[in-house]
Amino acid sequence: MRRYPGTGIGAILTNQPVGLLITPRSPTFFRRFPGVAVHLSSASPINRYVLLATEIATAMTHPFFAKHQETLERALHTIESRGYWSPFSEMPSPRVYGETAQADGEAAFKQYLNAAFPLEQQGSTGTAGQETSPFGFALGTTYPGFDIDTLLARVTKAHASWRAATPDAWVGVSLEILKRLNARSFEMANAVMHTTGQAFMMAFQAGGPHAQDRGLEAVAYAWDELRRIPGTAYWEKPQGKNPPLAMEKRFTIVPRGVALVLGCCTFPTWNGYPGLFASLATGNAVIVKPHPGAILPLAITVKIAREVLAEAGFDPDVVTLAATNPNDGAIVQQLAKRGEVRVIDFTGSTANGDWLETNARQAQVYTEKAGVNQIVIDSTDDLKGLARNVAFSLALYSGQMCTAPQNIYIPRDGIETPEGKVSFDDVVAAIAGGVQKLTSDPAKAVELIGAIQNEGVVARIDEARKAGKVVLDSQPLVHPAFADARVRTPLLLQLDVKDENVFTREWFGPIAFFIAVDSSAQAFDLAGRIARDHGALTLAAYTTTAEGEAAAVDAALTGGVALSLNLTGGVFVNQSAAFSDFHGTGANPAANASLADAAFVSNRFRVVQSRRHVPAKSAQDAPSAA
Amino acid sequence: MRRYPGTGIGAILTNQPVGLLITPRSPTFFRRFPGVAVHLSSASPINRYVLLATEIATAMTHPFFAKHQETLERALHTIESRGYWSPFSEMPSPRVYGETAQADGEAAFKQYLNAAFPLEQQGSTGTAGQETSPFGFALGTTYPGFDIDTLLARVTKAHASWRAATPDAWVGVSLEILKRLNARSFEMANAVMHTTGQAFMMAFQAGGPHAQDRGLEAVAYAWDELRRIPGTAYWEKPQGKNPPLAMEKRFTIVPRGVALVLGCCTFPTWNGYPGLFASLATGNAVIVKPHPGAILPLAITVKIAREVLAEAGFDPDVVTLAATNPNDGAIVQQLAKRGEVRVIDFTGSTANGDWLETNARQAQVYTEKAGVNQIVIDSTDDLKGLARNVAFSLALYSGQMCTAPQNIYIPRDGIETPEGKVSFDDVVAAIAGGVQKLTSDPAKAVELIGAIQNEGVVARIDEARKAGKVVLDSQPLVHPAFADARVRTPLLLQLDVKDENVFTREWFGPIAFFIAVDSSAQAFDLAGRIARDHGALTLAAYTTTAEGEAAAVDAALTGGVALSLNLTGGVFVNQSAAFSDFHGTGANPAANASLADAAFVSNRFRVVQSRRHVPAKSAQDAPSAA
Repeated sequence: MRRYPGTGIGAILTNQPVGLLITPRSPTFFRRFPGVAVHLSSASPINRYVLLATEIATAMTHPFFAKHQETLERALHTIESRGYWSPFSEMPSPRVYGETAQADGEAAFKQYLNAAFPLEQQGSTGTAGQETSPFGFALGTTYPGFDIDTLLARVTKAHASWRAATPDAWVGVSLEILKRLNARSFEMANAVMHTTGQAFMMAFQAGGPHAQDRGLEAVAYAWDELRRIPGTAYWEKPQGKNPPLAMEKRFTIVPRGVALVLGCCTFPTWNGYPGLFASLATGNAVIVKPHPGAILPLAITVKIAREVLAEAGFDPDVVTLAATNPNDGAIVQQLAKRGEVRVIDFTGSTANGDWLETNARQAQVYTEKAGVNQIVIDSTDDLKGLARNVAFSLALYSGQMCTAPQNIYIPRDGIETPEGKVSFDDVVAAIAGGVQKLTSDPAKAVELIGAIQNEGVVARIDEARKAGKVVLDSQPLVHPAFADARVRTPLLLQLDVKDENVFTREWFGPIAFFIAVDSSAQAFDLAGRIARDHGALTLAAYTTTAEGEAAAVDAALTGGVALSLNLTGGVFVNQSAAFSDFHGTGANPAANASLADAAFVSNRFRVVQSRRHVPAKSAQDAPSAA
Repeated sequence: MRRYPGTGIGAILTNQPVGLLITPRSPTFFRRFPGVAVHLSSASPINRYVLLATEIATAMTHPFFAKHQETLERALHTIESRGYWSPFSEMPSPRVYGETAQADGEAAFKQYLNAAFPLEQQGSTGTAGQETSPFGFALGTTYPGFDIDTLLARVTKAHASWRAATPDAWVGVSLEILKRLNARSFEMANAVMHTTGQAFMMAFQAGGPHAQDRGLEAVAYAWDELRRIPGTAYWEKPQGKNPPLAMEKRFTIVPRGVALVLGCCTFPTWNGYPGLFASLATGNAVIVKPHPGAILPLAITVKIAREVLAEAGFDPDVVTLAATNPNDGAIVQQLAKRGEVRVIDFTGSTANGDWLETNARQAQVYTEKAGVNQIVIDSTDDLKGLARNVAFSLALYSGQMCTAPQNIYIPRDGIETPEGKVSFDDVVAAIAGGVQKLTSDPAKAVELIGAIQNEGVVARIDEARKAGKVVLDSQPLVHPAFADARVRTPLLLQLDVKDENVFTREWFGPIAFFIAVDSSAQAFDLAGRIARDHGALTLAAYTTTAEGEAAAVDAALTGGVALSLNLTGGVFVNQSAAFSDFHGTGANPAANASLADAAFVSNRFRVVQSRRHVPAKSAQDAPSAA
């Protein structure tokens, strides 16, 4: 069967003749393109399908939409089936990205250093930008500064033509931006690495293709909603023996207005793209306000977006950069409360997220905030695999992932394994040993743990050291390539279940607690309650029993948190795969939304209708109204 | 083509052989019913389809879901095509509702008078209920009283089994409730009439079938979202030369919790059902708190809902009534702020709606509030039709509809018609004359204007009389059947465009203004701005020119308000048809949501996933992963 991607129309190749089948979605599609319906109305049913397919294949969509329709169709399919798929290769391979891609990306990055970032935003004033690489050097990149009034005036003006465009243009332009971002993944990897402190491989994957996946996922959800709103509808209501009432109704998608993306300093693209692309693909103008510590990745993103917009004939100010210097809270608050700003996507602290939810009442506010991620160890059939897997999760990017585990609950009288009962201390030792092994060789370690994004995290390690019994102390490491890199190995502490005041808060960074509990049941109860009350993005559990699994699922449902069971291989609790894993649930305080689902996109636009009388079809033609 | 309703699966009858086609939605369906997928995995492609169709037809859905699947499928189709359709007859015909339906309905209503309403809610305390018919008598019906702690404890307990049920059960039970409500439409008509003041015919239609349509629409939107979340997914990620990573993912719909529906006194069912059924069909428990002036219609609704729930084996406390006496503000505020309450649907005043949006921060809050509905008269080719249509809209239920027009803008130098220029005064006279004609015979008038719901509206008429030049004064009428009925004809006033302080507020009731404007352009500008700033549910325009139509559409888009153009026949601006018209846009202050769309339902539940490793299929079987 052949599909006409994005249209809900498929051609089934039967023996003969070739038939075309219109799925239940096609009435909507018909009405999105009233020209087709008119054109087709007099054709025979079979010819209508053929005509329709021809028209669809050739016209009526924005060129960028047509260009990426196949990708969009796959994305639409995958967000429903939720299997594995990605159009963007996560391997930094020359065969995929080109023989010179790596060198080109590094060269492009170096050109940004100690220079004005090549972004022309009319009306900008002064400059901003004081980024420092966690690997130990100042970027020296400056960006156009802004004043809020001028920025909003320009963006509002630019939005006029964007909002008047059709959904296929919004979606097509968004898809083209993603495609071009993908081609620049090496450049982005360097930019992400030297702002977030991620090691190169992670910066490439999470900052490049995985972030692009999340952006594409948001675009797919947006289109999935947009395509369900017909452009026009014919409404005919029978009136008994009197002529029917007949109306034509037209439906216009009205974007909310100006959207504001507030970036974070650890995953500027991965966490920024869903909101950026969800808003853009639903016709909003987007102001991207990066974290002052990680501007470059989003500046590159904005630059590419503006190039595509200009090529497509739109005012580039539909996407703008609002770069700031550190301690920009006052500016952000002023911007966030402006009446023009109707959508806000935020990733960051609970305090700032709560402030936005409470004060930016004129806007739809989507937040991802702090949480306490937990692992319950009840029993396992593979302690080695468990230790290796958990150790990796703790070490990866020095625990600076919103999905990294913090609290590890282990029964104080040990756990069951195929080799018999293993004591609390031995389980702790196995995991701590795993972490030590991963971090003992600095040259290898830094490729996994990266660098510490900011001094606040270092200070937190020092604060945490006093909070419990140190199992494995955090050590500074010397990076073989960057002598001044801020590198710290994980700090592992032992606590007791009674230390709830310590472990119910988020200790963001390479800090984790082994917590002795009376029983697995107590741990599952605690995990559900803590996720529910304090927020969590991940929960992991190790159990070999049906009761344990049921308790884990129950904790996940209570806490409204995603559960990973018995990870002992190559999947880690920190990882969240676009199209398949919902990142965040919106069901606990760590996030009020999920990346991505229908709720994440469906309120970024509204529908305004008009209706007028038309001659009744059933009064003119033979067939009566349905 | 035959469809298997609700499944996205269709059978196309080609020449030969009979083929079955699975639409892009079917992967989701597969995963909702993992049993099928397993069962089918070894079958040949064609046999899989046949097997699947058989299974779908016979099993795996709640009996109530299966019973109403055809209706649901039609509803799903219609919310996308947005043509006319209703499964519930709006004509109070004995052929549809039964020969004795009218008498039975009236008898049932009379049994409620001066009696305790037959609703058994365990844990209730005392009684409430002081309703008075606007047609001039006390109902004397009492309802179980409640205290908030006990009510919430019981509802929370009842919710445990409901949330654990599957979406097809939530949807099936919801559809069965609607079906039974429909059968009781005559009883409901009496209850609505004698609480709201609507004349019988309107009470029957708007309180019965049209309200049921709106409820069904919400259920259809809910199912449309729910069915897109697969129950399970198989995820397999290639690892180059290494074995792929393979996981099974399970997705659980987690309803928000307890939903609260806050009813209004004019359209308790029509405005209450969307929220009630959207919440119920997404697995929430629902507390229905009617307006103290219109309890009976929602009490009947709750009673029927509880009967269906009990029959289906659920705790009836999944739907409860919270009846109150007048001036219940403190109770409502206390209830609305309770942590258990996670969803609130409100119809009523701007002050109360704003209070909920600001203070009930733990809940998703959907509000419909006050607005200023407007008509711009630029030109017409049918002044008689215009006058008749607008007069009817002003008189219908004494302007006590949230969609009733209030401000009528007419250029002070008159409008163009086929008969030449017609002066401002003559346009006013035509419409006012139409209203006078509709209300001159009391016996006929009361069947259109009904009665005034409460004394506040009567007081507002008196207040309004001083606000401008009276064109047509409001008169009390004596109802031929109910001597003490509170009946008032519309008050029509003349204002000037400079009286903006008068006409930018809502004067709820039979009060409308003819406003002299300098030009149509001024009126369209004003209409867009007032809708945007003060809210509006409807905008109507009369124009014979392309420029006029463009200006009207522009005003509608600026104001985020639904537009009706040149209504001169049997459709009125007050009317909003389920499945076709979006009621409210969520794009101006009159409502923060639309009845109904994806945004109205998609955040009433969340998704919690779990994932675990499984053996890779592509490592076992021949075919490689997609």
